[in-house]
Amino acid sequence: MGAYDKLKENVLIANKALVKAGLVILTWGNASEIDRERGVVAIKPSGVDYDRMSINDIVVTDLDGNVVDGELKASSDLGTHLEIYKNFKNAGGVVHTHSTFATAWAQAGQSIVCSGTTHADYFYGAVPVTRSLKEDETGDYEKNTGKIIAELFEKEKIDSVSVPAVLVKGHAPFTWGENAAKAVENAVVLEQVAKTAFITRGILSFSPELEKHIADKHYFRKHGENAYYGQKKEKRQ
Amino acid sequence: MGAYDKLKENVLIANKALVKAGLVILTWGNASEIDRERGVVAIKPSGVDYDRMSINDIVVTDLDGNVVDGELKASSDLGTHLEIYKNFKNAGGVVHTHSTFATAWAQAGQSIVCSGTTHADYFYGAVPVTRSLKEDETGDYEKNTGKIIAELFEKEKIDSVSVPAVLVKGHAPFTWGENAAKAVENAVVLEQVAKTAFITRGILSFSPELEKHIADKHYFRKHGENAYYGQKKEKRQ
Amino acid sequence: MGAYDKLKENVLIANKALVKAGLVILTWGNASEIDRERGVVAIKPSGVDYDRMSINDIVVTDLDGNVVDGELKASSDLGTHLEIYKNFKNAGGVVHTHSTFATAWAQAGQSIVCSGTTHADYFYGAVPVTRSLKEDETGDYEKNTGKIIAELFEKEKIDSVSVPAVLVKGHAPFTWGENAAKAVENAVVLEQVAKTAFITRGILSFSPELEKHIADKHYFRKHGENAYYGQKKEKRQ
Amino acid sequence: MGAYDKLKENVLIANKALVKAGLVILTWGNASEIDRERGVVAIKPSGVDYDRMSINDIVVTDLDGNVVDGELKASSDLGTHLEIYKNFKNAGGVVHTHSTFATAWAQAGQSIVCSGTTHADYFYGAVPVTRSLKEDETGDYEKNTGKIIAELFEKEKIDSVSVPAVLVKGHAPFTWGENAAKAVENAVVLEQVAKTAFITRGILSFSPELEKHIADKHYFRKHGENAYYGQKKEKRQ
Repeated sequence: MGAYDKLKENVLIANKALVKAGLVILTWGNASEIDRERGVVAIKPSGVDYDRMSINDIVVTDLDGNVVDGELKASSDLGTHLEIYKNFKNAGGVVHTHSTFATAWAQAGQSIVCSGTTHADYFYGAVPVTRSLKEDETGDYEKNTGKIIAELFEKEKIDSVSVPAVLVKGHAPFTWGENAAKAVENAVVLEQVAKTAFITRGILSFSPELEKHIADKHYFRKHGENAYYGQKKEKRQ
Repeated sequence: MGAYDKLKENVLIANKALVKAGLVILTWGNASEIDRERGVVAIKPSGVDYDRMSINDIVVTDLDGNVVDGELKASSDLGTHLEIYKNFKNAGGVVHTHSTFATAWAQAGQSIVCSGTTHADYFYGAVPVTRSLKEDETGDYEKNTGKIIAELFEKEKIDSVSVPAVLVKGHAPFTWGENAAKAVENAVVLEQVAKTAFITRGILSFSPELEKHIADKHYFRKHGENAYYGQKKEKRQ
Repeated sequence: MGAYDKLKENVLIANKALVKAGLVILTWGNASEIDRERGVVAIKPSGVDYDRMSINDIVVTDLDGNVVDGELKASSDLGTHLEIYKNFKNAGGVVHTHSTFATAWAQAGQSIVCSGTTHADYFYGAVPVTRSLKEDETGDYEKNTGKIIAELFEKEKIDSVSVPAVLVKGHAPFTWGENAAKAVENAVVLEQVAKTAFITRGILSFSPELEKHIADKHYFRKHGENAYYGQKKEKRQ
Repeated sequence: MGAYDKLKENVLIANKALVKAGLVILTWGNASEIDRERGVVAIKPSGVDYDRMSINDIVVTDLDGNVVDGELKASSDLGTHLEIYKNFKNAGGVVHTHSTFATAWAQAGQSIVCSGTTHADYFYGAVPVTRSLKEDETGDYEKNTGKIIAELFEKEKIDSVSVPAVLVKGHAPFTWGENAAKAVENAVVLEQVAKTAFITRGILSFSPELEKHIADKHYFRKHGENAYYGQKKEKRQ
């Protein structure tokens, strides 16, 4: 048994779950998980078929991106994952996909406002959209993508625990969670929320906003001290 | 054999049917069935995976929500189901989902008018949308959700037998029927009707209304005294 | 072997093909085939699950709708099928579905104009939409539905061989073909054409019309004397 | 073993992959591959079911369309494939489908501008749309379809290596790549890009354009000298 086998297995399962959930095609999309005690991140290798991917293909790096385990090259999006882990201290797993509807909102450069309780159950407030990267920021592209995500959350005072998702303008979504599996779940929910928001807007020609007292009620019946959804109180991330 | 095994089995099958029909993802959505003679309701447990759900996980409560059988916590939406049973005396089963298109109409706060015979075959008139819950109604949230459903049907003089579905504004649909299986069928049809209504509105930019004499014809060829659809006269709920 | 076994088998296969192609849910939709020499039509029974349907469930009637073989009640839409057979002499099979996009166009009361070669490959000109049935026509509803289809084709001088499909306003599509299998194929194509037409209209906000010389080219490379698509010259219906 | 078995097998696999990816229904769509050394092209036979298609059904022709191997008639779109091979010297495989969203853009007569990095990863700039064929060009229809594709790329100075896809106005897409498998991949991506572009436009009511420096970054991290996506530097076509 290798030293990182459990971490790598979580990441393998998470990556395959993305395919099964219909969020990725070809080799698009990637999931990672961090072991904060050991200061390492396991991530999908770049450009490898999900079908043929095995635990040995998963790449483990330190927080500067240096490979500490694995023979393949890490996902090209590693730099963004690392920035998210550095800035969002509660993030234990990160997922990136080009899922259809969330990507369309990202391409439109529009945040997804909370139009219903499905959204409020998972995301406390709008899922925000970043600014574009400037031309001189494309050099260290993936790292800078992570930086503008962190910048957005700081500037807009968004809590990365209660809003575990972002749209990168012109690109696609990133989600996170307490571990890779939760980051996958948030990616699944984000796509569903993005799809429903698109249809809602199609009906009304604008995006309506759910009343705050109902959004609060829904978010807090699933999260925090007084949550009562599910079989036992689970802390969210 | 437990005293409630048949009731619980119906509810288990109905909940799994929701997944199979593509109406729910993750642990969203729930089905229940009532035994009016014994005054008990069987319902899905809260936050349990559908794949792993067995008959022993189904929770049985009385009409005040006290558990009379089962070890798990009941669905957090139990309070809404109970109000529906109390107010709609012909309801034998209740289903709640966040199915995509019906949820979008609920988020848009728009009732689904009857634009075609597919709708008229199942719902006699528009599928209505509730008002929003007020801030002081969020305390007993799930129960009050049921109350505003009942309030709507009473105020608008809508017959809960011929319109076995409602959209809760900003939230999602509830359907019911003579038993859990029929409530599932109505949930399936509602989603199909909601999808077709969305596309119809996309073509015209408004929602056309089917002529009443055609809607009547379709509803009554499937329901009531002179129904002639299907192999034998079946009473609806 | 029963006298109508081959005919009934064709109809059984066609009905199951509708489900497999995703055109029908529940017990909606029905396919029939005619034996013009013997003057009989085999059709799906009313309200029977497709999964459990066997050859013995298929109902055979004469052209007045009198059952000549089978124990079940025929599809409630039989009357429409019979009118189509009586009026369109080349129709050997008829299919009725509530497939999502074609139904939406029917609900919108809009014909589907030919916007591309996919449409032109199968339908020579727009897929037309009928008028609504008047109130005094709902008595013999299914038969009169067939009559307004025939009326439309006669009035608008549409050839039922080169346009083997129609939208019944506020209701849903009917298609036909040289046999039940071809009617199913036309139903599959109609749904695809209706979906693509919806998206095309979404892009432009109107439905563009394909140039006639290109529509002609496509239709006639697949149909008629000089067709050169496929492995052998096949006459269409 | 036949002389063209490897080529034919590639083409068989590619055609079946189109069905599996959901890009074609019925017998629509076709893939081919060229052996430039021997001057032959293998292509799908016309109008044969994908399920029953075997390696012996694949047709091999020279660049003038004369059959050199195989008993069936080649796809009716062969003429377009041949023109693409003649004009785009780096094309090793060609695919034609009527995939839903790409076809809708073709029917709308609109090029798909680059609205996001998913597009930029595969297509460097807009996926362009041809002009319509004139009436006197319908005689040698398939060949002339290829000619207006080549004409467009020449006139607009579009590089067929970095933009391996085109929409034929009123018809549907063609894609190409270094071999049949890559042409299939490009067809899959084009459909995904076309779908996301449709949704993006639905949100905004117009098609936004990704900043050029970001499009450049994405295209060149996957293609060319300094590509760093995937496990080894792969030249694109």
